[in-house]
Amino acid sequence: MSRGNSRSGKALERVHSVVKESQGSPIRALKRLMEERADVLSLAMGEATFGAPQELIEAAARALEEGKNLYTSTNGIPAMREAVADFAKRRWDVDVDPETSVLMTVGGMEAIHLAFRIVVEEGDEVLLPDPGWGMMRTVAERRGARLIYYPLARAGTWTYDVDAILERMTDRTKLVCVNSPSNPTGAVLSAEDWPRLTAVAREKGVFILSDDVYHNFVYDGSHSSALSHGELENLIVVNSFSKTFAVTGWRLGHVIAHPWLIHQMGAYKESISLCSLSIGQWAMSEFLAASDGYLDWSRALCRDNMQKMIASLKAVPGVSCPEPQGGFYVFLDTSALDPSSAGMTEYLWREGVAVVPGGFFGSQGEGCLRLGFAAPWEEIEPALARLQQALAKKHG
Amino acid sequence: MSRGNSRSGKALERVHSVVKESQGSPIRALKRLMEERADVLSLAMGEATFGAPQELIEAAARALEEGKNLYTSTNGIPAMREAVADFAKRRWDVDVDPETSVLMTVGGMEAIHLAFRIVVEEGDEVLLPDPGWGMMRTVAERRGARLIYYPLARAGTWTYDVDAILERMTDRTKLVCVNSPSNPTGAVLSAEDWPRLTAVAREKGVFILSDDVYHNFVYDGSHSSALSHGELENLIVVNSFSKTFAVTGWRLGHVIAHPWLIHQMGAYKESISLCSLSIGQWAMSEFLAASDGYLDWSRALCRDNMQKMIASLKAVPGVSCPEPQGGFYVFLDTSALDPSSAGMTEYLWREGVAVVPGGFFGSQGEGCLRLGFAAPWEEIEPALARLQQALAKKHG
Repeated sequence: MSRGNSRSGKALERVHSVVKESQGSPIRALKRLMEERADVLSLAMGEATFGAPQELIEAAARALEEGKNLYTSTNGIPAMREAVADFAKRRWDVDVDPETSVLMTVGGMEAIHLAFRIVVEEGDEVLLPDPGWGMMRTVAERRGARLIYYPLARAGTWTYDVDAILERMTDRTKLVCVNSPSNPTGAVLSAEDWPRLTAVAREKGVFILSDDVYHNFVYDGSHSSALSHGELENLIVVNSFSKTFAVTGWRLGHVIAHPWLIHQMGAYKESISLCSLSIGQWAMSEFLAASDGYLDWSRALCRDNMQKMIASLKAVPGVSCPEPQGGFYVFLDTSALDPSSAGMTEYLWREGVAVVPGGFFGSQGEGCLRLGFAAPWEEIEPALARLQQALAKKHG
Repeated sequence: MSRGNSRSGKALERVHSVVKESQGSPIRALKRLMEERADVLSLAMGEATFGAPQELIEAAARALEEGKNLYTSTNGIPAMREAVADFAKRRWDVDVDPETSVLMTVGGMEAIHLAFRIVVEEGDEVLLPDPGWGMMRTVAERRGARLIYYPLARAGTWTYDVDAILERMTDRTKLVCVNSPSNPTGAVLSAEDWPRLTAVAREKGVFILSDDVYHNFVYDGSHSSALSHGELENLIVVNSFSKTFAVTGWRLGHVIAHPWLIHQMGAYKESISLCSLSIGQWAMSEFLAASDGYLDWSRALCRDNMQKMIASLKAVPGVSCPEPQGGFYVFLDTSALDPSSAGMTEYLWREGVAVVPGGFFGSQGEGCLRLGFAAPWEEIEPALARLQQALAKKHG
């Protein structure tokens, strides 16, 4: 059997390129590079690396040993869907029917993919935040949606500007994507703003896809969910306990939506992933009711890291860095040193520190860098020191 | 927050039904029913329930404890891809480049989904086996392919008839799906037949998608892989170690294909699942080199179960049941008792035994029932006894 990298052969010549070279995440490329280069210190992480709750790990080990390693139903085991509903009741005081309105997914990513697959048709208008998570844009592009960006506001720190969304919402709009707290800016949509958005969207027949995967990480007040301020008829709420509990490799997300959409998404999911991780479902459904301690601890840790990071960066000349309202990231403005975030990222990679270029998150993110702080401080500190040094050197 | 099952609301009214009620697997519905009804005995399983290798479970528990719970690169950790290549070398004596030609997936299902997404465009002709696994058909339908069925032969037992495939292969054919051993028939494509198929397909510029997830379960001789009889330029080989090692709930499959296709599929995968299960990759990459003992044991167990099941069913009047060449299933012909496999399945459900109706697998499967035997015999025996009784009652 011979092979080569070139695209030769009659069969291959008949295939059109589906993935454009411009698509796909620099984070993905970085992840692969990082697996090969141990000398680079990273602030590029898109997940919490401070460790999962020990009780959750033990529950998963028990599930393994008890042989809970087989297929589950596509929508997820009943106990897991009930735990999701209980969690929603406890955190946001909303009633969710675990039988009809919850679908377990392969991380938040599959939930978003399925929502786009079912709700959005080619040519439909979709509103996306700028800056915003690049993979949301990629999913929208691959679905053939017409992308309309709404800017986040920069009033001291990054915030949601509901008027900027409402101005762009027309009868052609099919879906508005919200991510609160936001990746990469930490912007949070407040309890005061949510009802304005959901009411107009409902009236116009527009869906809101709310990506709540950073819900636990709000640093001033508590997280407000779309579920508290609207009706399921036009809300699709995505969450990921693998993100929340630092087990991103388990790929365990879920979506809460109208029963009709859940049915459509579940039937579609069957032909993509069949089901979500069995042991993760068993462990998480057991652990979730007792998760408050970990949630508080990890939020406090992240707040503390964030504040220390901000304090350190304030000492660096030529950069600016507001305190985020939530999330895992500081979105550092280095445009005064280099207007190109890609150029700055390459420079920093050569200096031995990995960050994510802000341009990946949209035109408004250009000139900024995403720095993760959801890690033990002793891991952040040396990377941050190297970053500070490299930025100071650049400033000259 | 109020809600209902009815599809009301302006937003919902704008969504077209993507999933037809006729689509989707009866197995999925069954799985959900079974989670709720413990009194039904099942022969409907599509997975091995005789237990995973203890060393694999222990490796997964170690990975959990060691904190290997975070995202991996989208294509999979290097050690896992190398283990896949080593396995291919050992089992089929083929050289696979782990760096460029292997992509880890969320079970074989995601691999198939991605292959269709990248290779098949709307209107392309795809050849599928009849009978054949229903989800392959569902993926093809959802991709908008033109479906052409090639019949499996029934010469004593079910077998592949390569001429039936070649007769249907034209310049319009984009992809031929093969599943050897086959679900549900156990038919195996032999080492003699593979080169005829791959040579013509390559010449015509047709891809072969070979679903090898039952590769370990060949009961006469050894499994022959497309990889041994062709070139990567038109081969896409799907496998699933979560199927092979009875950990289907881990969702750990992979695809071996041309580097250009692997790149396209990997980039697309990022927007569906981001990555495959971390702990599963770590555990499997550690375990795989020492898996021969389990592979031999589980194959012998299945052969033994299959032969006992066949012997039991031979005693039942009005049914016929050839010995399968491979796989997890006996495909029992009950057409003399009831020409409708759906009717027969419903009757048996009422009698307290679950089976999968052959009609789900195509028109040639009508009148047959799929019975799984990849389980401990003490689990099969009572279900089989109940089945025999119900069939005898039906025969009257």
